[in-house]
Amino acid sequence: MWNRTIDQETLSKKDLVRTPIQLLKTKHHGINIYVKRDDLLPFSFGGNKVRIANEFILDMINKGKNCMIGYGNVRSNMTRALANMCCSMGIPCHIVVSDDEDVACIETNNSRLTAFSNAIVHHCSKLHVAETLQRVIDDCKRIGLKPYYIYGDSKGKGNKETPIKAYIKAYQEITEQLNEHGVKVNQIYCATGTGMTQAGLIAGNIEYSGEEKIIGISIAREGSIISSALSEYLQAYFHDDVDHSERIHVSDEYLLGGYAKFDENITCTIRKILQSDGFALDPVYTGKAFYGMLKEIELNQFNEGNVLFMHSGSAPLFFDYIHTL
Amino acid sequence: MWNRTIDQETLSKKDLVRTPIQLLKTKHHGINIYVKRDDLLPFSFGGNKVRIANEFILDMINKGKNCMIGYGNVRSNMTRALANMCCSMGIPCHIVVSDDEDVACIETNNSRLTAFSNAIVHHCSKLHVAETLQRVIDDCKRIGLKPYYIYGDSKGKGNKETPIKAYIKAYQEITEQLNEHGVKVNQIYCATGTGMTQAGLIAGNIEYSGEEKIIGISIAREGSIISSALSEYLQAYFHDDVDHSERIHVSDEYLLGGYAKFDENITCTIRKILQSDGFALDPVYTGKAFYGMLKEIELNQFNEGNVLFMHSGSAPLFFDYIHTL
Repeated sequence: MWNRTIDQETLSKKDLVRTPIQLLKTKHHGINIYVKRDDLLPFSFGGNKVRIANEFILDMINKGKNCMIGYGNVRSNMTRALANMCCSMGIPCHIVVSDDEDVACIETNNSRLTAFSNAIVHHCSKLHVAETLQRVIDDCKRIGLKPYYIYGDSKGKGNKETPIKAYIKAYQEITEQLNEHGVKVNQIYCATGTGMTQAGLIAGNIEYSGEEKIIGISIAREGSIISSALSEYLQAYFHDDVDHSERIHVSDEYLLGGYAKFDENITCTIRKILQSDGFALDPVYTGKAFYGMLKEIELNQFNEGNVLFMHSGSAPLFFDYIHTL
Repeated sequence: MWNRTIDQETLSKKDLVRTPIQLLKTKHHGINIYVKRDDLLPFSFGGNKVRIANEFILDMINKGKNCMIGYGNVRSNMTRALANMCCSMGIPCHIVVSDDEDVACIETNNSRLTAFSNAIVHHCSKLHVAETLQRVIDDCKRIGLKPYYIYGDSKGKGNKETPIKAYIKAYQEITEQLNEHGVKVNQIYCATGTGMTQAGLIAGNIEYSGEEKIIGISIAREGSIISSALSEYLQAYFHDDVDHSERIHVSDEYLLGGYAKFDENITCTIRKILQSDGFALDPVYTGKAFYGMLKEIELNQFNEGNVLFMHSGSAPLFFDYIHTL
């Protein structure tokens, strides 16, 4: 339970603060729902991107680089967690932000927190991400820095194995906690955006011969695109060409029009869970995924057993949308 | 690390999830600063009022009552935590909110979260709190409920011993954690508003014969008023007339004009701590208290040793003020 602070020295240790697992007060159609509270990770408002940012920083240091470059949109939890962790460790950090028509120039809690962390933010249109990244990489080199782009080269190729390490470790942590308490879950559900979290959980499931189905609820993209992305992550991590498709389960039934789109079903789910169990989901990621999980439980009609929901954050997004809830 | 959920069954157990203690990255004038992360309590965005609300609910149940009545202003963490916990447990909850000139009709994240929890909110001016409370108590009785007002009678007398139990337990938890890691602290600092948290820490310090000074940084009221309030809490808890004044340490040097008033020193402190150590203070309570603690360390000129800061929340207030940071 003790952590000096989240830095290279401690986060690389296996025995970092474990986040709690909480059993929801009421069953859903006979199913117990356990929630892994990664929203309580003790850095930068927590969430999955805190674990993943830490893996990127460890990899950056291992590769002898000294300047971080991240990429995301204004609502990105990744840029907030990465920028804050870099700031805390004295690592210069550049963030490329893609603006599209809907989000251009919008301020969000995550964009404000990214700015507080003194990251240098470069805005560009979605069409110019690769060239903007290349320019930032080149500019960093020109002033003598050794830049590290989290997704590999400027096209986003070459570093798929690093981020999924975070949720392999989280999978191991979950397994230990469930074993300690003699609980067996049949499915683990998570929100799937980039796929890094789900790919990590699947890789953990493979590595530790787990029997649960890892089910991603896509919050933005079509299932086939996510499935390909997950395959790429897994093949990069395992250095193989094995077809892992029997382990890949994605639902794109709950996109509700795409990224950051939601409806009354989502806001209602968020209010109900806050009321009954005292934690907050957000309408962009976890609220949609949680709603999707409830619907999947209803469809499956198992009527008994346990599932686990990965609560991947994020309080900043919850408070962005609190007016609409 | 495991918690079923925060309800009567589990929160009354001593072995509830312990919140982590974090050592700040840099010393301040030679002093190590440890932070007790009660902002990570896993219910309703955490904070000291989660522990305290739990004590009120246990006391309500023990006294055979079945309807909760709380009181606070629109920024109150107490009303949010209490309303959410009651909602989660199916306990009807009334919240009397005092509006003064500055805050009348303002919406805050805490007032929004209180409303989400289906609490019935009664607004009144600061001059009419007692009569409003009495009316709500009488109305509840008239419909057959057994109301419980957290502060005792409608004048706020008669229940001073209950809330401070929360931070007696927290003091014990801190002592255990520090002992496990062989760390000794010379002072424990906390934000002091009502005094419930500080009084609990002092009572714990007395009960467990602790040697640390418990120092409250007042965020609103004059030191002499706080000191009297702390004495009343302690005498109520220990059922004695003993003069505990040698244990009572309060600074009112950092009021900055009163409740919810702050300046650039506070916002600068909040930004710096978020940058260096990845957690958020708020400008109403913990940011002012943390700043006060830093100034006290500078004045004391010990130049070595350890202190502990009680991080009593609150994320909702941080996000209320994020635009001003």
